[in-house]
Amino acid sequence: MSTIFFHTFKNPFITENGEQLSEPTIAYQTWGTLNEARDNVIVVCHALTGNTEANEWFGGFFGPGKTLDPDEHFIICTNALGSCYGTCGPVSVNPGTGKPYQADFSQITVRDIVRFDQLLLDELQIRGVEMVIGGSLGGMRALEFSIMDSRIKSAVLIAMGKAHSPWAIGISHTQREAIYNDPNWQEGYYAKSNPPKQGLALARKIAMNSYRSPQDFEAKFSRKRQQNSDQFQIESYLNYQGQKIVNRFDAVSYVRLTQAMDSHDIAYGRKGFRQALRKVKEPVLVIGIESDMLYPIAEQKELAQLLPNAHYIQIDSPHGHDGFLIEFDLMNQHILKFKKQLKNSIISH
Amino acid sequence: MSTIFFHTFKNPFITENGEQLSEPTIAYQTWGTLNEARDNVIVVCHALTGNTEANEWFGGFFGPGKTLDPDEHFIICTNALGSCYGTCGPVSVNPGTGKPYQADFSQITVRDIVRFDQLLLDELQIRGVEMVIGGSLGGMRALEFSIMDSRIKSAVLIAMGKAHSPWAIGISHTQREAIYNDPNWQEGYYAKSNPPKQGLALARKIAMNSYRSPQDFEAKFSRKRQQNSDQFQIESYLNYQGQKIVNRFDAVSYVRLTQAMDSHDIAYGRKGFRQALRKVKEPVLVIGIESDMLYPIAEQKELAQLLPNAHYIQIDSPHGHDGFLIEFDLMNQHILKFKKQLKNSIISH
Repeated sequence: MSTIFFHTFKNPFITENGEQLSEPTIAYQTWGTLNEARDNVIVVCHALTGNTEANEWFGGFFGPGKTLDPDEHFIICTNALGSCYGTCGPVSVNPGTGKPYQADFSQITVRDIVRFDQLLLDELQIRGVEMVIGGSLGGMRALEFSIMDSRIKSAVLIAMGKAHSPWAIGISHTQREAIYNDPNWQEGYYAKSNPPKQGLALARKIAMNSYRSPQDFEAKFSRKRQQNSDQFQIESYLNYQGQKIVNRFDAVSYVRLTQAMDSHDIAYGRKGFRQALRKVKEPVLVIGIESDMLYPIAEQKELAQLLPNAHYIQIDSPHGHDGFLIEFDLMNQHILKFKKQLKNSIISH
Repeated sequence: MSTIFFHTFKNPFITENGEQLSEPTIAYQTWGTLNEARDNVIVVCHALTGNTEANEWFGGFFGPGKTLDPDEHFIICTNALGSCYGTCGPVSVNPGTGKPYQADFSQITVRDIVRFDQLLLDELQIRGVEMVIGGSLGGMRALEFSIMDSRIKSAVLIAMGKAHSPWAIGISHTQREAIYNDPNWQEGYYAKSNPPKQGLALARKIAMNSYRSPQDFEAKFSRKRQQNSDQFQIESYLNYQGQKIVNRFDAVSYVRLTQAMDSHDIAYGRKGFRQALRKVKEPVLVIGIESDMLYPIAEQKELAQLLPNAHYIQIDSPHGHDGFLIEFDLMNQHILKFKKQLKNSIISH
């Protein structure tokens, strides 16, 4: 078990759209020991509904000789700005009003999330980051980190692309609307005793379909029905996933973080994609999952092609986008090889 | 312009689940002239929200020398049982109560829809059907028609499979839930003055994402925003599609017809897929659209492989599932070739 740390910054954080968050807190967990040079760091970035417990949801990456080895590295996982697991977000109390921000919470961007993470690295006096790694929103964060922070020495980017596509925006649009349509939503100023559960549950179900794949559902459920019911097992599965999310996630955070994902566009304000990526001199491993319906592998291939020093690896998994939280054995192999090449190239320099 | 005909059956129609529809009406349109042998017929089957106006939504198939040539064929398009364009469905008046069925309307199946269509063919004394054609739900209807009706001499099945997959069921489940979550839904007994517009609109938006493809949205919208707004064009497009459906479709019909699609399973009650298809001796052309995200081409390939006398054709279109309502030129070419082969084989017999 690792402790969750909290750090509250004295200075306000100004978001990209100019709003101010006073005395913002960041929650994070660490594993391993920071070396004297303060540069044996791996930064792990979570996805949409993730938290600081990377050892749970990235469990298959953790352990001796694996991608995330606490004997070797000082591993840091923050909770993203705008989330609801301890870092400043819509459920946090706004010091200006003494009440939770709720829908007053700023419409943040992936770059806001990364800049906020950078403040923690500064606070911890991190001098070098051997690797930043993440999938989905975590991959978008890791990519922006690589562009924005010269401490990053390598990156592993899984199951995302250079920008959020209209396909992904369309799917996230319907998820937000499912929340907005819930009468309990109340424009985001919902009563704590009466949250928009139905809407958030439906948002998650829509998302779950996009996270999996036809072959995955066919193998798991085919057309089987629930016992003593006409309901298809896939329907029961989706309902269960919807139920789980409402017990652990905030609806405004869900809206703000999906909007942040929609903001993902490394070219924005940087003239173009290639210009934006020119600064990423460090080696990058881009991983695509063959059955990903949300961020099809064409996006990862394109990203690897645009990056000056990237290698593309394809995971032949039937699990769709969620493969990035499932196919640890396959991904570990490739990442370990990548790490080895990094070491060799550092030695040979 | 072609007239919409209505025929009301004196006998009640008993659905597969044993419910009775009294004095049910079927709406249909025809083009061309029935020959003396009463066998120059083409039956066109519409999809989820279609109507009798095949000359509109299948317009590219209509005309001299094309797939649907009124100079040559007597073309019939019915409105499906359970729909809301004149055929008996949830908005029809239940003669037993004098009020619209609304949610009392039976949970019908694809086979119910086909059996109801068959009654019209009987009524019109049709002796032979040269071709039955449809895409999506229309393809499911056409496939069941081929199995259930010995008058069918050939079939063109577009963008569907042997059964509704858990992938497609999952996506349709979220659409129904969008409707159920609308407070105006009222368990399907909604006030005519206050229909569940928000829910139906969201259902359509979820569906639209599944009907298109990443490459289609990228080409049309990329990450462009609306003028004077932060809204992405893809979001505005989806909202527009949602608005359009609420002005022309009934929410209970939407629920019942998506449930009918989920019922699609040619093996049900017939021992197995191959056994079910053994009776389909006639030539079948199965058309898949390469970018179809809802019914991936693997399903059409499998269907063609399972059918005793089928040929598979792939349309390389970026338009996803909706390609079946767009790629008329490409499809016409293949269907005309198929029709020619049919004629030659009839002559050579």
